[in-house]
Amino acid sequence: MPPIIEIFDPTDPRIEPFRDVRDRDLRGRDGFMAEGSVVLDQLARSERFRAGALLILRNRLAGLEPRLASFGPDVPIYVADSEVFDAIAGFPVHRGVLAYGVAAELETDADWNARLSAIQRDRGFVVVACGLSNHDNMGALFRNGDAFGVGAVILDQMACDPLYRKSIRVSVGSVLTIPFRRMEGVRAIHAWLAGLGFECLCLSPAGDIALHELGTHRARALFLGTEGEGLDPAFLSDVRSLRIAMAPGLDSLNVATSAAIALHHFFSRRFEPS
Amino acid sequence: MPPIIEIFDPTDPRIEPFRDVRDRDLRGRDGFMAEGSVVLDQLARSERFRAGALLILRNRLAGLEPRLASFGPDVPIYVADSEVFDAIAGFPVHRGVLAYGVAAELETDADWNARLSAIQRDRGFVVVACGLSNHDNMGALFRNGDAFGVGAVILDQMACDPLYRKSIRVSVGSVLTIPFRRMEGVRAIHAWLAGLGFECLCLSPAGDIALHELGTHRARALFLGTEGEGLDPAFLSDVRSLRIAMAPGLDSLNVATSAAIALHHFFSRRFEPS
Repeated sequence: MPPIIEIFDPTDPRIEPFRDVRDRDLRGRDGFMAEGSVVLDQLARSERFRAGALLILRNRLAGLEPRLASFGPDVPIYVADSEVFDAIAGFPVHRGVLAYGVAAELETDADWNARLSAIQRDRGFVVVACGLSNHDNMGALFRNGDAFGVGAVILDQMACDPLYRKSIRVSVGSVLTIPFRRMEGVRAIHAWLAGLGFECLCLSPAGDIALHELGTHRARALFLGTEGEGLDPAFLSDVRSLRIAMAPGLDSLNVATSAAIALHHFFSRRFEPS
Repeated sequence: MPPIIEIFDPTDPRIEPFRDVRDRDLRGRDGFMAEGSVVLDQLARSERFRAGALLILRNRLAGLEPRLASFGPDVPIYVADSEVFDAIAGFPVHRGVLAYGVAAELETDADWNARLSAIQRDRGFVVVACGLSNHDNMGALFRNGDAFGVGAVILDQMACDPLYRKSIRVSVGSVLTIPFRRMEGVRAIHAWLAGLGFECLCLSPAGDIALHELGTHRARALFLGTEGEGLDPAFLSDVRSLRIAMAPGLDSLNVATSAAIALHHFFSRRFEPS
């Protein structure tokens, strides 16, 4: 069990990582801020991130003890009353559980090639998010990806940060367990994944083939574009595209919802012969 | 083209319906508040609701004129500058377009029986939302339902209000075009829909049959439960249940996302022989 340290003074320098953790205040700071007990579990089992410290509301402590035992002795657990807690965080934190997290280690290109090759051999899936700008959508994309066994997420240089506090929350912690990395340029990402043997697919209202008619099961990379504009039309025309059958004349679906529908199709047919 | 009336004084009694329209302030008031130009279009084509009045930011007026022409001369269009507009609404309305809407007419049981019988004959779908409590989810459910041709939504007595401002916005106005009604009791709703010839199905992680194996196309009613608990287990055990194939050990999907996956399956197979 990690050490428990009582905090009575909101200006105590030891709780510096927890000071003013509204999303807008976290920009540019090292590490990330995870909230809530379910996300705490995801952080405990993450191989890519580790907790640096926890801040727990005093009246939540007893109920959380079994969970807290999964953190090592090098993770201080700060405990505070509601008033001190909210004064530290800069807003009322209803869940009463905050974890300051950091990356566990730097990953190399070789690590990523090995990871993706393993996913490919296993006929698994990866998602490529290009220019996704909404943190809710990013979180929902990871949550949906987790439900359908997505092995990794690749982000282009324009996509927003999955470690934004709100994305972590909406993902129910899945951003801490699905490996992700950032790479520059959709064409470079495509060349890399295609070279590793992934079938690269994207979603488009004018797609070549209806999703539900996509039969043969293969290792797949699903490319998603920005919320408004979608993927670059020049890139779209060079990649096999799927359309989701939809009633005529309507606004398209939310990007994370579209991804869920496509990933469900891939996942539910994963045991069919290729 | 409806009349355009300039408002210079935020206390002007004519703009009463637009005063203090944050969701919490709208509770218990007649009518509803729709925002944004896309939702305005949905209101214009709605058969079940009509605009009572519009409030438009002056610098949006010219761009909106083609849209505004679709409202009748009995719909006053109030125009105000940003400062006056925000003082009326009680918060900064970035979209600069508000519509005060009301129900066009009361619908009878006979109207609803006729509507549902038509949907059933057409082998269409309805959604039944029991206890859904989150307004984002309610809005997303209508948006997703619209994409997949849902003909009507039935709400039980516990489900939240689709006409809540945030639900309307998240639905991209679909709550104004998909007919919905409230009824008491999931069993009464089930008896009614089954009696009209709908195949009643629900979603459950322990469902009898995997969604993607559901073949034969029929008129269907999809029952959805609350975000946390789902449907009443006693009811669940009496209805045919579908499970969405999912990676093991995970939190279930968001209810509106689950619905989208199921409805996509129904919709994409609607032309298969029954």
